[in-house]
Amino acid sequence: MAFARGYAATDASKPLEPFTFERRAPNADDIVIDIKYSGICHSDIHQVRNEWGNAKYPMVPGHEIVGIVSAVGSGVTKFKVGDKAGVGCFVNSCTTCATRDVDLEHYMPGLVQTYNDVEADGTTPTYGGYSDSIVVKEGYALSIPDNLDFAATAPLLCAGITLYSPLMHWKAGPGKKVAIVGMGGLGHMGVKIGAALGAEITVLSQSLSKKEDGLKLGATHYYATSDAETFTSLAGSFDLILCTVSAEIDWNAYLGLLKADGALVLLGVPENPVPVHAFALIPGRRSLAGSMIGSIKETQEMLDFCGKHDIVSDIELIRMDQVNEAYERVLKSDVRYRFVIDAATI
Amino acid sequence: MAFARGYAATDASKPLEPFTFERRAPNADDIVIDIKYSGICHSDIHQVRNEWGNAKYPMVPGHEIVGIVSAVGSGVTKFKVGDKAGVGCFVNSCTTCATRDVDLEHYMPGLVQTYNDVEADGTTPTYGGYSDSIVVKEGYALSIPDNLDFAATAPLLCAGITLYSPLMHWKAGPGKKVAIVGMGGLGHMGVKIGAALGAEITVLSQSLSKKEDGLKLGATHYYATSDAETFTSLAGSFDLILCTVSAEIDWNAYLGLLKADGALVLLGVPENPVPVHAFALIPGRRSLAGSMIGSIKETQEMLDFCGKHDIVSDIELIRMDQVNEAYERVLKSDVRYRFVIDAATI
Repeated sequence: MAFARGYAATDASKPLEPFTFERRAPNADDIVIDIKYSGICHSDIHQVRNEWGNAKYPMVPGHEIVGIVSAVGSGVTKFKVGDKAGVGCFVNSCTTCATRDVDLEHYMPGLVQTYNDVEADGTTPTYGGYSDSIVVKEGYALSIPDNLDFAATAPLLCAGITLYSPLMHWKAGPGKKVAIVGMGGLGHMGVKIGAALGAEITVLSQSLSKKEDGLKLGATHYYATSDAETFTSLAGSFDLILCTVSAEIDWNAYLGLLKADGALVLLGVPENPVPVHAFALIPGRRSLAGSMIGSIKETQEMLDFCGKHDIVSDIELIRMDQVNEAYERVLKSDVRYRFVIDAATI
Repeated sequence: MAFARGYAATDASKPLEPFTFERRAPNADDIVIDIKYSGICHSDIHQVRNEWGNAKYPMVPGHEIVGIVSAVGSGVTKFKVGDKAGVGCFVNSCTTCATRDVDLEHYMPGLVQTYNDVEADGTTPTYGGYSDSIVVKEGYALSIPDNLDFAATAPLLCAGITLYSPLMHWKAGPGKKVAIVGMGGLGHMGVKIGAALGAEITVLSQSLSKKEDGLKLGATHYYATSDAETFTSLAGSFDLILCTVSAEIDWNAYLGLLKADGALVLLGVPENPVPVHAFALIPGRRSLAGSMIGSIKETQEMLDFCGKHDIVSDIELIRMDQVNEAYERVLKSDVRYRFVIDAATI
């Protein structure tokens, strides 16, 4: 066991505060990562504030983690001390299947989340990236391309894969028209990755306030959803719409923007159910689907793709003690486009 | 022009009654069909009673039509006088595209429905199959396999293709677990065709009253949805669920029965929107989709498949003057499984 320092939530109503805790002792298949940077995901706030009803306190959030390998177990083959490594949203997957499902492991029961969860042993709590070190099985750690700005790669581990996976699954590429709903931490990654894949990207945002950014990052078109004309002029336009917002918007209106065989894919989670009309789906064989992060295999592919295309997140680097203020700014969409904590300030 | 006799609705509140009308004069690419049998689809009742708000009276319903070719235009190559022929839900498709989309034509704007619609000329009303003859472009007529019971093939033109198309699109076959929700006119065709495709079929019906039929037609399992245990014991079981009912059921509960990457496909149209929770879609990358009939090309493939596998509908043959009584029985699900009108009784 080794001590780690970080920031934790101790209940749903209090700000995060400094916290010292024990990391589990590394096994033969583990690596230890000296954390350098940790992104702030909107879902950290949901979980810290127990908005999904499953909070375990004390909670050290953070699942967009990059750092330097400081130790490796005797059985480790993929990493050596000094390598850049990352950890995303989960640190173990289904342990009951005979073989690991490398494509769908993130959708299997038995997934162990990087924080606010319990290790496969049933007792050890998991603590996330708002800290100075982490112990993780090498099979759940990612290699980080050397050419990318290190701090700005952290958000790829959640925001990046959350967009890359559906873009790949629904075959975004040359000749395909893809809309990204919402121009935030997730949305701006969708614009960058989608454009790099060769798809024609349209941003659908509440207002035009980030239009210049959107076009600069790779979008071809940018429309305001507050303008009703957007929904008539773009009817039947898109092969794929990725919805990154968690507000309760009228999905039926967005389904009307799809071509035949198009899919509207939810990446954000509205608090309440949204009424859906069968007539929005049946004519045109349209789909309303959901997608959640990606497998470790696909996350590594995404990182390699981003390395090749020089894609990172647009970030604002903060000190650890600015985290509570950063949360308030995330809630006001006042960040372009992701906060990343500098772990040197812990 | 030629006169046809049939039954029509003259307004939303009256029973169907005898009606004599003119069929359009055949063009060089048309065939004339001497109608022999016409199926009764639940959507006929919706339209006759103006429940979809777009009724055009007088309305001659019927889009499950089979008969014998009695005349062919000079340019017709696919049919000759004396052939068996069928007409399904549409008699023309998008006329603005440069080439006909033989796979997605039924989802294009410009589709001309077999009845309650207007021909591409913008003026001539279309009248359906509750009549003794019909004039149709040969490209929108189907060849009927000779080996099948003629009357019992009529429902293939709508009920058959409505199930065949999503079974094919979502790749039902050996190794796939498919659930059919509802054991009626549509559902019983799903059981027969799905089983012939080699998928393992489960029927999910309100009660077990038709269990014996379901197993006889090809289902391996049969569960009552009125039993809450069904939704716990079958959680995460299916690759595909085809929902043939138009009642407002809890789609979230059915989405929970899907495996990762599974799809719940709506074939029936509930009157009101149904609340859907993003959490029912996101974990497992599940889809809620819709599907509507099929293209002419796919409908012909379905008929050929049914010919090869000896599949027809289970029907109750009625006289034309029994149609109003039959409608009442359809609404009570009191038919096993499709009414077919004997056009000789018109």
